[in-house]
Amino acid sequence: MKTKLIQPTASAYAYPLLIKNILNTPLIYSPEQKILYRDQMEYDYKTFGQRVEKLANMLQERGVRPGDTVAVMDWDSHRYLECFFAVPMMGCVLHTINIRLTPEQLIYTINHAEDDVILVNEDFLPLLESVKDRFETVKQVILLTDKKETPQSSMELAGEYEALMADAPTGYEFPDFDENTMATTFYTTGTTGLPKGVFFSHRQIVLHTYGLMSGLCAYDTQASLNSSDVYMPLTPMFHVHAWGLPYFMTMLGAKQVYPGKYEPETLLKLILTHKVTFSHCVPTIINMLVTSPVINQVDLGNWKVVIGGSALPQGLCREALKHGINIYVAYGMSETCPLLTVANIKPKFKNKSEDELVELRCKTGLPVPNVNLEIIDYNGNPLPHDGKSAGEVVVRSPWLSQGYVKDEQKSEELWANGWLHTGDIGVIDSEGYLQITDRLKDVIKTGGEWISSLELENIISQHEAVKEVAVVGIADEKWGERPLAIVNLREDRIDKISAEDIKSFCMTFVEKGMLPKYGIPSRIVLNETIPKTSVGKISKKDIRDQYR
Amino acid sequence: MKTKLIQPTASAYAYPLLIKNILNTPLIYSPEQKILYRDQMEYDYKTFGQRVEKLANMLQERGVRPGDTVAVMDWDSHRYLECFFAVPMMGCVLHTINIRLTPEQLIYTINHAEDDVILVNEDFLPLLESVKDRFETVKQVILLTDKKETPQSSMELAGEYEALMADAPTGYEFPDFDENTMATTFYTTGTTGLPKGVFFSHRQIVLHTYGLMSGLCAYDTQASLNSSDVYMPLTPMFHVHAWGLPYFMTMLGAKQVYPGKYEPETLLKLILTHKVTFSHCVPTIINMLVTSPVINQVDLGNWKVVIGGSALPQGLCREALKHGINIYVAYGMSETCPLLTVANIKPKFKNKSEDELVELRCKTGLPVPNVNLEIIDYNGNPLPHDGKSAGEVVVRSPWLSQGYVKDEQKSEELWANGWLHTGDIGVIDSEGYLQITDRLKDVIKTGGEWISSLELENIISQHEAVKEVAVVGIADEKWGERPLAIVNLREDRIDKISAEDIKSFCMTFVEKGMLPKYGIPSRIVLNETIPKTSVGKISKKDIRDQYR
Repeated sequence: MKTKLIQPTASAYAYPLLIKNILNTPLIYSPEQKILYRDQMEYDYKTFGQRVEKLANMLQERGVRPGDTVAVMDWDSHRYLECFFAVPMMGCVLHTINIRLTPEQLIYTINHAEDDVILVNEDFLPLLESVKDRFETVKQVILLTDKKETPQSSMELAGEYEALMADAPTGYEFPDFDENTMATTFYTTGTTGLPKGVFFSHRQIVLHTYGLMSGLCAYDTQASLNSSDVYMPLTPMFHVHAWGLPYFMTMLGAKQVYPGKYEPETLLKLILTHKVTFSHCVPTIINMLVTSPVINQVDLGNWKVVIGGSALPQGLCREALKHGINIYVAYGMSETCPLLTVANIKPKFKNKSEDELVELRCKTGLPVPNVNLEIIDYNGNPLPHDGKSAGEVVVRSPWLSQGYVKDEQKSEELWANGWLHTGDIGVIDSEGYLQITDRLKDVIKTGGEWISSLELENIISQHEAVKEVAVVGIADEKWGERPLAIVNLREDRIDKISAEDIKSFCMTFVEKGMLPKYGIPSRIVLNETIPKTSVGKISKKDIRDQYR
Repeated sequence: MKTKLIQPTASAYAYPLLIKNILNTPLIYSPEQKILYRDQMEYDYKTFGQRVEKLANMLQERGVRPGDTVAVMDWDSHRYLECFFAVPMMGCVLHTINIRLTPEQLIYTINHAEDDVILVNEDFLPLLESVKDRFETVKQVILLTDKKETPQSSMELAGEYEALMADAPTGYEFPDFDENTMATTFYTTGTTGLPKGVFFSHRQIVLHTYGLMSGLCAYDTQASLNSSDVYMPLTPMFHVHAWGLPYFMTMLGAKQVYPGKYEPETLLKLILTHKVTFSHCVPTIINMLVTSPVINQVDLGNWKVVIGGSALPQGLCREALKHGINIYVAYGMSETCPLLTVANIKPKFKNKSEDELVELRCKTGLPVPNVNLEIIDYNGNPLPHDGKSAGEVVVRSPWLSQGYVKDEQKSEELWANGWLHTGDIGVIDSEGYLQITDRLKDVIKTGGEWISSLELENIISQHEAVKEVAVVGIADEKWGERPLAIVNLREDRIDKISAEDIKSFCMTFVEKGMLPKYGIPSRIVLNETIPKTSVGKISKKDIRDQYR
């Protein structure tokens, strides 16, 4: 008799979380609100809704069926936004192709994701043509262009997007289905190995949209968003759905501006012309803008910018604030949809000094609701939140990727012990703020402890004679790994400084409590060539191979 | 090969939606923020988190196990809030007992919900004692009191809440489990039949919390909430979890004030002392406050109030606005968790006149994201959104109750054709605003059309000779139902007015296009006693029985 009450209650009457319901709201709330693409296109949400229906009809007429994969290679555009909705709403998978892939990576991801159709901007036609003979599943290619003329191509093109759209009818009955149906996929590229396909379901994208809402709207923060904000992405739409913000800003029915290719002058012009109030980007983009010559002639006092992708240096944060930009950090990764934390300022810190607030704005942040976030040591044990203990960041949340496409082993590694392993090393302070300090691959595991190779490089680089330094972990039978440093001295100091001098210098940091004693490198190699990659970055992999 | 991509992706790595994760956020964001209960109790969120652990330990020590049902009979209190979290977080079901039930209804719900433990405020001890001999599953009763002395009781009491809490340790490992696990239940009472048990899962409560966030925070509305708001419920916590707001305001880490029993002077004092900025209530409560003698001595200019439960008359809305109260409507019902719509003002209406804005504030509202809402006719066909066509409001949303406890037939009726049938009649205008006009049970179904009995009563009551009128539908072989009106005339007009006069009067409304011709009552009974219920309401059921 009692059993009836304790059983899970999901039934035929449970209604799923579906992307189509994100689109319902603005069509009621603000159908007259505008969506723009550079100076190429401007229409209202009502038209947007109709174009999403037209796109679905157009794809269906071209043979696309639920379960098929539709890939896009485009700059940030209204077309891309239409695909964000129409493709998954049909029950198809949207594959957002990274336009910066090498031809080898490109053809690998196209075949691995089993793309049926590719929508390609003419700017990437030559790249796609270079691999067309190796297509395994692609049945047709549709052209995206801002121009009137169709470019020459060695590929057979099924037509041009706007021309095909013009012929398609409106009205499409987007079906209900299981909320766990795959909605999107895209590939992450590491420094080694093949690209890995991350994927997200309708459920995850809808929940992540609420996650963004909670992190950016609900708390009384430095930059609360709402439906009256004007949005322009500055993180490409192929990269984790531009952090999911196009879904969220569409749900809000906010004005949206899609900037195409990122060119500083065009971006600034769009921000000013359309009164953009909210964007998100990596630090490089904001640096490009604040160092642009025109920055002093424009007023950016109503512009909120969320920074992600890598750490925001406090200097750059101050510079942006000086120009009136309301800037702060959020954190996540491809595998996490991406949002995990936002550098929201706690109520009790509101009256802190400007300097202290800059520090908080640059923190990795506080976890948003429904994100469990911990740091664990080498053995998987949780570490104290003391602002000092560094461990790998592991997370649980309903919107995290459940693994990699067709790769059970890597999926299992990602989710070892029921937590998603970010591969980032960080500390959590007593206030709960996370600060990422390293990538896991850059830390040295010695005697059950972790030493940051970046921190060690930072310390050694402070020696007056050091020109360049690289630190790696070398396998050690007793300790697991031990740090090895390659140190290049300034020309005038060569032969005057020994490895022991460097060790003694490190020892002064040990004495100041800034480095554990086991952090002093076991071996210091002076004045040997430091292996570099083709783009000039230090290749730690090559150093490890060389000194194994 | 293709199958891998199209399958639903839920896996062992999917993380559930659980109430415990609502509580995680404020413990990080604002552990120092306050939760108060009248002048009886004041503590911070950190303490609240510890007390939730203590409560779980206390219940566990008393033999409570996952799947058990823990019932509460209390005024709005910190204790109730602790139960909102600890009970479902343990994997138990929280049964929030309506303190206004008759003894018969009370014992029915206690036995039907299979309560294992009841926490009862001493004010309701006599009521509970009156049914104690009929307990079927209750194993123990725990006393809730604000006083030091334990009251006399004919029941064996397992102890007093605060004393038991004092003995319980902190620290409790709240488990993960299926998000569809039942979290709460409570009973709705109609005018006829037995109370029906509505129930909600962890998933539904978490999603509804996001629903509240979207309706109250994310849109640029007359009264956006955020974490700096100060919350006091004015809808009882036993009634649909006080509309779910305690869950939402806890997730925000906002200051919360629990008022105990609703007494106008205490309420106003609490609002002023603790700078309450946000409440929600039925129109009766706001009417009680604005007609209270002290209203003119206090400043309510920072108070936002969401009205639900029944229509907000425009006069009352104006009166509240005059006192500075930022008042607007939201809509839902027990079966819908409850939120469905909020009377948010669209961006394009922001600059409307004050009178027009009052009208919008009093609308039933716009559906919040992830709520699909339609009106359907007698035959289940969707009706146009023209502001005129009235139909039954049917909804779909991921947070709706999936039925009634142990009542498959009523659950199926509730969810006929895959939509939850609200039993409300409403119109949707071309802007998407819903306006509830009737209860389905008050409309007359004639020739496939619906006529509002309330509207017909309103029309007839405008005749100068009419003192009182009641309209019901009487079964008719040809038309399904036909309207019958009982009309009581003013003493001085009796015998001067005939049934035909009333029909002619109705005809003038037909001529003005305000009533369809088939809306004229087939039968008008003059000067017969109108049956009333014990509380003086017109009993349409009795009229129907009498004139069948």
